[in-house]
Amino acid sequence: MGDSVDGDARSNDGSFLDEALRLSEQARELKDAASAFISRTWNEEQTLCRRALALDSDLRRLHSALESASKTFSFDQKYADKAEEEIDRARCLLSDGDVASVLPNKDHGRFLKMFLGPLNVRAKRKEVRLKVKEEYNSYRDRTAFIFLLFPSTLLFLRSWMWDGCFPALPVQLYQAWLLFLYTNLALRENILRVNGSDIRPWWIYHHYFAMLMTLVSLTWEIKGQPDCSSKQKGVKLFLVWAIMQGIAMLLQNRYQRQRLYTRIALGKAKRMDVVWGETSGVEGQLWLLCPLLFILQGFEAYIGLLLLRTAFVGAVFEWQLVVCGALLVLMAVGNFANTVETLMVKSRFKAMKRSRSKQDLDPPTSPAHSR
Amino acid sequence: MGDSVDGDARSNDGSFLDEALRLSEQARELKDAASAFISRTWNEEQTLCRRALALDSDLRRLHSALESASKTFSFDQKYADKAEEEIDRARCLLSDGDVASVLPNKDHGRFLKMFLGPLNVRAKRKEVRLKVKEEYNSYRDRTAFIFLLFPSTLLFLRSWMWDGCFPALPVQLYQAWLLFLYTNLALRENILRVNGSDIRPWWIYHHYFAMLMTLVSLTWEIKGQPDCSSKQKGVKLFLVWAIMQGIAMLLQNRYQRQRLYTRIALGKAKRMDVVWGETSGVEGQLWLLCPLLFILQGFEAYIGLLLLRTAFVGAVFEWQLVVCGALLVLMAVGNFANTVETLMVKSRFKAMKRSRSKQDLDPPTSPAHSR
Repeated sequence: MGDSVDGDARSNDGSFLDEALRLSEQARELKDAASAFISRTWNEEQTLCRRALALDSDLRRLHSALESASKTFSFDQKYADKAEEEIDRARCLLSDGDVASVLPNKDHGRFLKMFLGPLNVRAKRKEVRLKVKEEYNSYRDRTAFIFLLFPSTLLFLRSWMWDGCFPALPVQLYQAWLLFLYTNLALRENILRVNGSDIRPWWIYHHYFAMLMTLVSLTWEIKGQPDCSSKQKGVKLFLVWAIMQGIAMLLQNRYQRQRLYTRIALGKAKRMDVVWGETSGVEGQLWLLCPLLFILQGFEAYIGLLLLRTAFVGAVFEWQLVVCGALLVLMAVGNFANTVETLMVKSRFKAMKRSRSKQDLDPPTSPAHSR
Repeated sequence: MGDSVDGDARSNDGSFLDEALRLSEQARELKDAASAFISRTWNEEQTLCRRALALDSDLRRLHSALESASKTFSFDQKYADKAEEEIDRARCLLSDGDVASVLPNKDHGRFLKMFLGPLNVRAKRKEVRLKVKEEYNSYRDRTAFIFLLFPSTLLFLRSWMWDGCFPALPVQLYQAWLLFLYTNLALRENILRVNGSDIRPWWIYHHYFAMLMTLVSLTWEIKGQPDCSSKQKGVKLFLVWAIMQGIAMLLQNRYQRQRLYTRIALGKAKRMDVVWGETSGVEGQLWLLCPLLFILQGFEAYIGLLLLRTAFVGAVFEWQLVVCGALLVLMAVGNFANTVETLMVKSRFKAMKRSRSKQDLDPPTSPAHSR
């Protein structure tokens, strides 16, 4: 009987081995299938990419030929407009959606390369790109609340518990959180840009400056002097500014989301866009948002100048005051210039729309091409 | 003649329009082709993915059946070994290279989600993955030099120009650079892990702790007291440790690269691996590296304890001292435990190799499966 069990076991061993060999063979087949799939996909993608690039250069050539022709001799404007419209439509088809997925990667920019190396962050499938965008929006919503609550709590505790003097730790925690937030936003916005969003470069630069400022503010001694009320004036003003910034962020998110949905519904925006451009439908909110933004920018510049004055007039010279002050002024001026420019583009579009009196016209320089 | 030019122009307008319509039509065709390509690719990928998952679960089932069978009755070890070997080979085919590209995304982990949102950072093509890996290695090489030079320069200038007292700004610049470096390494290593590298989780955690420590050290007042030499003792020790760390990084990079090339050449490593496992060929360097690593870890713990002592014994209590001290001790202990574990795995492999006396055997628990 001992022999019989042994014999069973041996045949069992054999069947295990047969099964293992069978599965190993399947794995090899699967590997070959996967390799073939990937190389075939790659080749097809290259073919589509070449077609897209050739078509794009044809469109460019036709566009410039049309432009130079319209300068040299009189032209039937109706034909030219129609041709321009067709060119724009074709370009939109190339730059949006599935064709864009097979185009070679856009340059990722130094910031992403610095943090992530030579990784391609463009998602192939549209659903994934939209998910990234959606997540960015909801991330902004979530953080706007913290942006509002954190400094409010600090200011409240200052007068309620801390006798007018901030302890260093909570303020530094807030500054560390801000550094994380701005790094995060800068990374995500760079990724969105690679994925086809038309976000203005300034807003990304703005976050670089903000990163630098919060990094510098971390090295700032908060309760170095015995007289904290004069020393902490800058911190207090900064926190008040942060509260206003939080309110503006909340309103802006709300406005942008509604605008984007309206524009997508009207077929005027790609879903990856971060909104700017024509107004429609939610103008009431814009009249609330714009003055608030301008007040905020004025306040930002005021705090910047105050910091600079403290640095050069005050008893102790600290380089952090100069850097933070200068950065705040720079950001205020940049924000102002960009808000005004956006409003001007909006009104230009409106005027154009009125003069052409067409309802379904695309903006002549679509954001996707002005880059 | 005016009429003829006008006629020419009109026909020209018309031909422009024809050309625009033709290109627009081409764009539509291209869009359809791209859409079809993407959805077809997606479907094929899903099919391959399902096959791979089914095969993987078959392999797991067979592996556990083999294991429980070998416990219950006597077994011909030769058959069992051969079956195990086939199972390992099949698993390697699934977890490496092209099949892995069609498998569903590994969980990216909270860190990457926090910084990048729901983006897929796994590269489809092997060449891209290897490029990411290569870039990570050369990034480590580049930064090891800065890691070495920056603190050396600070220490040199301290005794040569600064009369034994560090000014705050250069030290803080160094700390800010360290924060950037560790964030960077943590991001890149998480990305490598998603792309199939077997990097030990501890080294990533190590970089999280290091990020926290440099962030805390930034809030540290560097020249708060008049007596800088006692206050800056911690900073000085930290810089000496950084120099040793730089040397260790350089040696480690050199060692790992040579080891990896040797193992790839022997067919024992996947090219995405960060090396650990059997030794072969470059053992001479390991005998230099290991003592240096242990000395470094001891020194790290010593500095940590020194910081803790300064915090509780010294005149001024600073929470930064406690946090940095505790983190240094924690990192030293973790590094030590992980180095020892790696060495033990190495010697286990060697012993096994000797007992089985096979030259081409894969390690029984391949790193790719031990996760």
